[in-house]
Amino acid sequence: MDETICDSLQRHIEWYNHEFDARLTKEDTTGTRIYHVIPQEHVDRVRQHPNHPDFFRDLAAFDGAIDAIKILSTQYDIFFVTAAMEYPASFAAKYDWLKTHFPFINELNFVFCGDKSIIHADYLIDDTPKHLDTFVGEGILFNALHNIHAQGYQRVHSWQDILEKLGLD
Amino acid sequence: MDETICDSLQRHIEWYNHEFDARLTKEDTTGTRIYHVIPQEHVDRVRQHPNHPDFFRDLAAFDGAIDAIKILSTQYDIFFVTAAMEYPASFAAKYDWLKTHFPFINELNFVFCGDKSIIHADYLIDDTPKHLDTFVGEGILFNALHNIHAQGYQRVHSWQDILEKLGLD
Repeated sequence: MDETICDSLQRHIEWYNHEFDARLTKEDTTGTRIYHVIPQEHVDRVRQHPNHPDFFRDLAAFDGAIDAIKILSTQYDIFFVTAAMEYPASFAAKYDWLKTHFPFINELNFVFCGDKSIIHADYLIDDTPKHLDTFVGEGILFNALHNIHAQGYQRVHSWQDILEKLGLD
Repeated sequence: MDETICDSLQRHIEWYNHEFDARLTKEDTTGTRIYHVIPQEHVDRVRQHPNHPDFFRDLAAFDGAIDAIKILSTQYDIFFVTAAMEYPASFAAKYDWLKTHFPFINELNFVFCGDKSIIHADYLIDDTPKHLDTFVGEGILFNALHNIHAQGYQRVHSWQDILEKLGLD
């Protein structure tokens, strides 16, 4: 979900700049996570962002994500698998966000978990390399600023890329 | 979770009897679900029970479940996989219940889902036959009043049975 179908980094940056009167940009986080480019005393505050009920409320989906997943859903069973357990107060907001943006996907195909090694599927499209490392199927790394230095993964840069890779463009 | 590590049927019955001044017993649900043995006009109310924040609050764990899972956790990676997506308002209460009763299991091993065919594990211990039907590993049916007529499953009657089956008794 985060940084694969929705731009949660943008929301972190907006809120961080507002809270600390800062001028952080997305590009400042290139090759790492926001937690590593801000002062240590600000980290706890940023880690709490996703637990706020408004964090996901009006978060945009990535360009083409909704249309691409609609197309994919004609040929594949789509599951949304999100590492929500680190943010237990985000469950309701994440569920609502998925229901709002993907009304054509049954909510029985939503999975809120932590360790994604428990997932059984043909493909996993994820921005976080560690989730791909333990995946039993074919892993696809969704390009994100934080993962641009990760090597050895099948990388896509957009939802259009995914459609092409899966023969549905 | 429900009817495998906690007695949610007992809670349904208690609440139902209180709400409708009824005398339903657990045994009345033998071979079926509570929804099929109560008047149709009561079903919606009962289906909403798990969405109430108090439904899980003081629900007891089954006899021996906590001790057995503690023993199993010395040899196995334990994940709690619960079909929570039908009850989105139950997420917080389910999470709190698991954290309270199983503080020795990392919350990153909690999975809230709907369709359990997405689960990859060696064993699935579940009271619901349909979840075992699509499971890729070894399925174990946890005996419950509603499943007593289900045939063709490896059945256990208690957490002691599970320890014996897995060689940890």
